Amino acid sequence: MDKIKEGDYITLVATDKRYLIHIIRGRMYNTKNGSISAEDIINKIPGEIVNNIGIFKPTIEDIIMYGIKRKTQIIYPKEASLIQIKLNLQNGMKVFECGTGSGAMSIFFINAISPDGILYTYDREISFQENAKENLKRFGFYKNVKFISKDINEGIEEKDFDAAFLDVKEPWKYIELMKNVLKPSSNLGIIVPTTNQVSRTLKELKKYFIDIEVIEILTRKYKINPDRLRPEDIMVGHTGYLIFAR
Amino acid sequence: MDKIKEGDYITLVATDKRYLIHIIRGRMYNTKNGSISAEDIINKIPGEIVNNIGIFKPTIEDIIMYGIKRKTQIIYPKEASLIQIKLNLQNGMKVFECGTGSGAMSIFFINAISPDGILYTYDREISFQENAKENLKRFGFYKNVKFISKDINEGIEEKDFDAAFLDVKEPWKYIELMKNVLKPSSNLGIIVPTTNQVSRTLKELKKYFIDIEVIEILTRKYKINPDRLRPEDIMVGHTGYLIFAR
Amino acid sequence: MDKIKEGDYITLVATDKRYLIHIIRGRMYNTKNGSISAEDIINKIPGEIVNNIGIFKPTIEDIIMYGIKRKTQIIYPKEASLIQIKLNLQNGMKVFECGTGSGAMSIFFINAISPDGILYTYDREISFQENAKENLKRFGFYKNVKFISKDINEGIEEKDFDAAFLDVKEPWKYIELMKNVLKPSSNLGIIVPTTNQVSRTLKELKKYFIDIEVIEILTRKYKINPDRLRPEDIMVGHTGYLIFAR
Amino acid sequence: MDKIKEGDYITLVATDKRYLIHIIRGRMYNTKNGSISAEDIINKIPGEIVNNIGIFKPTIEDIIMYGIKRKTQIIYPKEASLIQIKLNLQNGMKVFECGTGSGAMSIFFINAISPDGILYTYDREISFQENAKENLKRFGFYKNVKFISKDINEGIEEKDFDAAFLDVKEPWKYIELMKNVLKPSSNLGIIVPTTNQVSRTLKELKKYFIDIEVIEILTRKYKINPDRLRPEDIMVGHTGYLIFAR
Repeated sequence: MDKIKEGDYITLVATDKRYLIHIIRGRMYNTKNGSISAEDIINKIPGEIVNNIGIFKPTIEDIIMYGIKRKTQIIYPKEASLIQIKLNLQNGMKVFECGTGSGAMSIFFINAISPDGILYTYDREISFQENAKENLKRFGFYKNVKFISKDINEGIEEKDFDAAFLDVKEPWKYIELMKNVLKPSSNLGIIVPTTNQVSRTLKELKKYFIDIEVIEILTRKYKINPDRLRPEDIMVGHTGYLIFAR
Repeated sequence: MDKIKEGDYITLVATDKRYLIHIIRGRMYNTKNGSISAEDIINKIPGEIVNNIGIFKPTIEDIIMYGIKRKTQIIYPKEASLIQIKLNLQNGMKVFECGTGSGAMSIFFINAISPDGILYTYDREISFQENAKENLKRFGFYKNVKFISKDINEGIEEKDFDAAFLDVKEPWKYIELMKNVLKPSSNLGIIVPTTNQVSRTLKELKKYFIDIEVIEILTRKYKINPDRLRPEDIMVGHTGYLIFAR
Repeated sequence: MDKIKEGDYITLVATDKRYLIHIIRGRMYNTKNGSISAEDIINKIPGEIVNNIGIFKPTIEDIIMYGIKRKTQIIYPKEASLIQIKLNLQNGMKVFECGTGSGAMSIFFINAISPDGILYTYDREISFQENAKENLKRFGFYKNVKFISKDINEGIEEKDFDAAFLDVKEPWKYIELMKNVLKPSSNLGIIVPTTNQVSRTLKELKKYFIDIEVIEILTRKYKINPDRLRPEDIMVGHTGYLIFAR
Repeated sequence: MDKIKEGDYITLVATDKRYLIHIIRGRMYNTKNGSISAEDIINKIPGEIVNNIGIFKPTIEDIIMYGIKRKTQIIYPKEASLIQIKLNLQNGMKVFECGTGSGAMSIFFINAISPDGILYTYDREISFQENAKENLKRFGFYKNVKFISKDINEGIEEKDFDAAFLDVKEPWKYIELMKNVLKPSSNLGIIVPTTNQVSRTLKELKKYFIDIEVIEILTRKYKINPDRLRPEDIMVGHTGYLIFAR
C-alpha cells in the first residue's frame, strides 16, 4: 500500500472519535488521544497506529460524515445505504438525482455505478453545486457525473434513466416528470423529513407508480464494553422518511 | 429495453405483494390480483402492467428476498446495505467472506465490487456452497467470485484483502486470522444474533482492531394510505447485531 | 391467601403462554404444556404450579390482554401505563374518558384513582358500553365509575375534571370542550392511530392548551435464553400516537 | 382550586421547557420565555398563563424529572409506568423495593398503592436514603413508606409482599430471597442496564420464577408542528432492560 504523503486526506481514529484531516507539513492535529504532527504521519502506511492514534485511508463514510463541506442537510450513511439497494444500483447505470445538495448522496451514487455508469445531478442553487463539485474533487469522486444547475420544473433533457432520486421540498410536483424520464422497469427513491410530505407524495405517486414503500430506519449503537454491553444512551431519532416505488 | 422471453426471471407486483417467477411456456402464475400466464408475459417490456399486475426485471432485493433458495438464515437487505457502506466496498476490491451460506450476502458483495473486484467466499459445508453457486448462476452473479469449501480454521491461502466479513457462529475464533489476511487499512464486518456473541467477539476484537462499532438496525414500514398514514402493525424486531472494526 | 374456588377467574402460565380461564367444575383447560381440569385447580393457592402449569390470580395486564371481551381495538398496557403517568393519576381524582370502547382503559383508570376517585366514561354506542360494563363486573372493577351513553357533541353535564382522555376518531372536534370541563391545571391525553389525525389534533390543541407532547412507544421483548440473549424476531410496530397537553 | 402561596412547588411551562420551582418571595425565575417573579405567581390559580409562561401544579412526572435531588441514576417515567403495570400495583398493596436510590421509583410506588398500601424501601447507603426521604417530604409523598438502611444480604424481616422491585447491581444474588419474601402469586420486577446482567439474572430467575419477560422501552417524541410533523432528531436510546417474573 502506498505511503502517506503531503496533500493526502487521512482519517485519524482516537479511541471512539474520528477526524478527517488534510496532511500539510508543519501542521499539528489534535485528537482525543493527544496531538500528532503531519510529519508523524507522512511516510506511514495506512493502518499504522502512532501514539495510540490510528491512521487510515478515509472510507466513503468518513468522507461523508467528516470530510465534505455541508451547505445543506446531508443524507446519512444509514439512509444512503438502503437507498442504494432499493434503487438496485449497479455498475453501468444512468442515474438521476435532484437536488445535489452538498454532494453526499452523489458520492454514494457515483461509487455504486462506477466505473461505467453516469450520474446526472440537478440543483437550481449554483452555490450548492459549486460546493458539491469541490467536495467530489477533494476526495476523488469527480468522475462519472454531470452537474446541471437548473430547476427541473423547466424540464430534463436526458431520459431513459435506470434510477432516480429526489431530495427536494415538494417531491409531489415532480412525480409525473420522473415517470417520463425513467425507463419503465426502473426505481424511484425519495426522502422527506415530515409525515405531511409523505402523505402528499403518496397521493401523487399512486397515480403513476406501483410497489410503493415508505420506510424509516433507526440505528442503535452499543457501547463496546464486552462485560457491560449496552446501547448508547442517546440515539438518532429521525433523519427522514424514505419512499420507494417502481 | 429487451422484451421478456422464455427462461427469464421476472418480478410480478400485485398491489403490495411481489413474486419472483421463472418464465416457462404453458405455466400460470397466481398472484394476489389474479392469475397471469407465461404467454401474457412473454414479449412484454419490463415495466408494463397487465391485468393489474406489474411486470418487472428483478432487483437485487427481489432476488435475495424471493429468488434464492435458502439453506441457511440469510442476511436481509437492511443489514446488507449498511455492511456494504461500512466495509467501504468499491469497484475493484478483493473481499473475503465466511460463511457463504445461501449466497445472499455474496450477491451484494459481487455487485458492489464489480466489474473489477473479486470475492473469496468460504464455507466448510459443501452443500451450502453448491446451493449458493446455483443461486448466483440463476441470477447472473456467478462472476468475480471464488468458492472455497474449507474450514478457515485450517488457514486461508490468499491475503491482502480490502475487506472481510464473518457470518459464523464463533467469530471470536477468527479475529486474529482476519487481522493477518486484511490489508492494514481495511475494514472487518461481523454479524451475530445474540448479545453473548457480541460480548465474546468484542473481547477478542479489542486485541487486534480499533474503531469498533456495534450496531442494530430497525426498519419501520408504513401503510401507504396518504390520508391514514401510519406504521405497519408488526415490524421485524431483530435480525442481528452488526460489528465493524478496522 | 385464599384458595381458588369455582367461579374464580385464574391465569394459567404454561412456559411463555398465558391463559385467562373461568373455573367451572367439569371443564378441562388446554395449554401449551398439556391439559388441566377445574378440579386440579380448585382449592389450590394462587402461585402453585401443577403439572408444569402455573396457577395465578390474574393481574390487570392479564385481564386486559386475555380476559375482556373486545368489541373495539383496545389500548395496550404499554400505552396505558404511560397515559396513567402523563395524566398524573392519583387516588381521589375525577377523570373523564371518551369513548369507553371495550373498557380496557377504564380498568386502568379505575385502578389508578381508587378507592376515592371517580371515572365518567362516555360512549355513544350503547352496545359498547354494555360490553364494557360486563368486562368491568367480571373482574371486579365495576366501582368508582359512571357510564354515560351519549355523544359528547351534545355536551357534558359534569365539569372540574382532574384529567381527561380521548380515544375517538376526530379528537380535534372536542378540544375546546375538554378545555371547558377540565380544571385549569389538569392534563389531557389523546390517542390516534394516524399521522394525519395527529396533525389535525395539534392544530386545534395549540389554540387551547400548552405543554403539548406527541409520543410513540415501542417495546421490544427478548427471548429469555441467558446464553443466547436476543430480541424476539417480530415486534409490535405501531399501536398509536399519544398526545398530551395541559 | 387553591391559590398559589409562598413555599409551594410549582411547574412553569415556557413553550416546550418545564421548570420546577420553589416559590420564595423576592425571587426571580428565568425561563425560555423570559423572567417571572414570585410575586407574579403568588395568588394565581394553577393553570393560569402569565407573560406567556404557564403556571401549574407539578405532576408526578415533573417531580421526578425536575424536582427531586439526584444522588443516583433514576428510573424514568417511561420505565416506571410499565413497572407499575407489570407489578400489578393496586391500592392497599405491600411492596418491597431495593435500592431506594434517589426515591424516584418510591414516589411512583407510593402513589400507586395509596392510601392503604405500604412500601418497604431498602438501601444500604444511608446518605441515599436521607436524600430520598427529603425528596419525598418536599413533594408530599412521605407517607405509606418505611425506609430501611440495610444490606438485604443480611435478610429481610418482613414477608408476604404483594410485589417486589430490584434496582441493584447484582440482582442475581437476591432472586431466591425475593421468592421467599413474596406471596406466591406475586410479581417481581428488576431493572439492569447491561445485557450481561440480564443474562446472569435470567439464569437465576429460571430456578425460582416462571412467566419471565425481558423488555426494553423506546419512546419517540415528535416535534409538534402540525404542518411539519416529524420525530425529534435525537431520542433516548437506552435506560435499562426491564425483567419481570412471577
